[in-house]
Amino acid sequence: MKEVRAFAPASVTNVGCGFDVLGFAIEKPGDEVVVRLRNSKGITIKKISGDGGKLSKDIEQNTAGVAVRAFLNEISFEKGIEIEIYKNMALGTGLGSSAASAVAAVVALDHLLNTKLTKRELLKFALEGEKLTSGGRYHADNVAAALYGGLVVIRCSDDLDVINIDYPDDLNCAIIYPHIVMNTSDMRRLLRKEITLADAVKQWSNIASLVTGFMKKDYTIISKSINDFIVEPVRSLLIPSFYEMKKAAIDAGAVGCSISGSGPSLFALTKSKAAANKTANEMKKVLDKIEIECDIYISGINRKGPKILSAK
Amino acid sequence: MKEVRAFAPASVTNVGCGFDVLGFAIEKPGDEVVVRLRNSKGITIKKISGDGGKLSKDIEQNTAGVAVRAFLNEISFEKGIEIEIYKNMALGTGLGSSAASAVAAVVALDHLLNTKLTKRELLKFALEGEKLTSGGRYHADNVAAALYGGLVVIRCSDDLDVINIDYPDDLNCAIIYPHIVMNTSDMRRLLRKEITLADAVKQWSNIASLVTGFMKKDYTIISKSINDFIVEPVRSLLIPSFYEMKKAAIDAGAVGCSISGSGPSLFALTKSKAAANKTANEMKKVLDKIEIECDIYISGINRKGPKILSAK
Repeated sequence: MKEVRAFAPASVTNVGCGFDVLGFAIEKPGDEVVVRLRNSKGITIKKISGDGGKLSKDIEQNTAGVAVRAFLNEISFEKGIEIEIYKNMALGTGLGSSAASAVAAVVALDHLLNTKLTKRELLKFALEGEKLTSGGRYHADNVAAALYGGLVVIRCSDDLDVINIDYPDDLNCAIIYPHIVMNTSDMRRLLRKEITLADAVKQWSNIASLVTGFMKKDYTIISKSINDFIVEPVRSLLIPSFYEMKKAAIDAGAVGCSISGSGPSLFALTKSKAAANKTANEMKKVLDKIEIECDIYISGINRKGPKILSAK
Repeated sequence: MKEVRAFAPASVTNVGCGFDVLGFAIEKPGDEVVVRLRNSKGITIKKISGDGGKLSKDIEQNTAGVAVRAFLNEISFEKGIEIEIYKNMALGTGLGSSAASAVAAVVALDHLLNTKLTKRELLKFALEGEKLTSGGRYHADNVAAALYGGLVVIRCSDDLDVINIDYPDDLNCAIIYPHIVMNTSDMRRLLRKEITLADAVKQWSNIASLVTGFMKKDYTIISKSINDFIVEPVRSLLIPSFYEMKKAAIDAGAVGCSISGSGPSLFALTKSKAAANKTANEMKKVLDKIEIECDIYISGINRKGPKILSAK
């Protein structure tokens, strides 16, 4: 085998009240990465497409590059690797674009080198990539969702402790990405460093209940408990017509709606694909009124996560 | 029917990291309450035993009395009710003594009057009793655990939103009640009003994971995620040799160990009754060394909660 092409999906994190704790993979969009053996030593990024020229080809400045380097360092690989990155989503959407590239890269590399590493081992390498985008802090939610697939609970990013939990079989998701620019680091700075114990208790009551609702496949519990009282009220300030969109989603029958990751994308959970379509249309009408363009993604939960597209 | 005697169990709340959110009922101890029809109007508490004379017979100052009054107000009951309360546990143990009495009272009354109310309706009345002990704040954890039985998640005390979740079938519990006096209101005052967002995230990651662990019946997940970084470090200051007892419990094979409710009782979760016995013995040795007396309770999780003992 000389080259492998892998896909890894975008992901929705936080999922309402589950700040830094919950995430799920979606079916599309997602990134594709090709890794190819080369005879000369070292790692090079040969090509990046779909990023509008914004991503660096310096492996130390690219999430897929950093992940591949971490992987190869661990196994003391002697030859060289060439990387091609095909991005199928915009940067800075709040849908884990950089995580998807890193995960696709390590999954492709594992297949190419036949190393058969566990997901937990691959997670460690892909997380090295995430350090780049989160100012040095490990942050496992997007990477874990993209790599493990399905819906994940992150107990501890440092301990690489990720648990897949069950969810309703017909759970679907409407995602709307308004074309506005937000920066993840700015979004993090916006958050309060301290919160009241009373608010924290409210939030963790909801998180405990939300996890229960997913695992019991009970939409009523999910709907009651998904609301976020800590992060959404702050981050939503930077998303035009956020609450109008949220209301439109709920009015259209969505189970819940909030910001995906640090935004600006919104996600809405629904009980069917048809409901997701309807929900997305209603949310889009709100953006149309204020003349903001958007992308819409309709998706079930991606139970499998990444996949190998070709190997030759 | 003229009189009904009901039992309601003690309960362990918080359950490590689940401050104000998680609770479970135990098999024993528990309180018994007799409610009896009387011809003259009004509610009287005829007898309280086992409280060392500490509880008030004024119905407005007694959790069972307040609960019965709330119940009767709701149904516009015309006759009178006489109450007898048999306490089988000390007051101020952190095991929900006042909640057990309130729950036993409303369950007995529901049976006596054949009102067939839902648990949610009974919860509302029993919670009125809890207002007394928590300075006016509704606080559903002990009452919900005692009334619903099993392991409960409280999404919202105000909304009476309680969900039973599953747990390992062989889950057992060792409880040690050191004979020291602590006051619930003091224990609440001791807590910080504000916490860092970073600590809050750590806590809610653990709560999400702990709920997952219980529902998946996975002791490894439970053990990793039960630790409490917010409340235990403060409250344990007032419990002599707390960390020595906790270490003794973990060394004896306990899955986790923390303070029950606002203390001073400690609970340790174990994988069998034998392990609970061993754990309790090891914890007791620590108290023996510092010459503090204690009560020990070994119990499975009480799946059923309250029960009617007699009706005549």
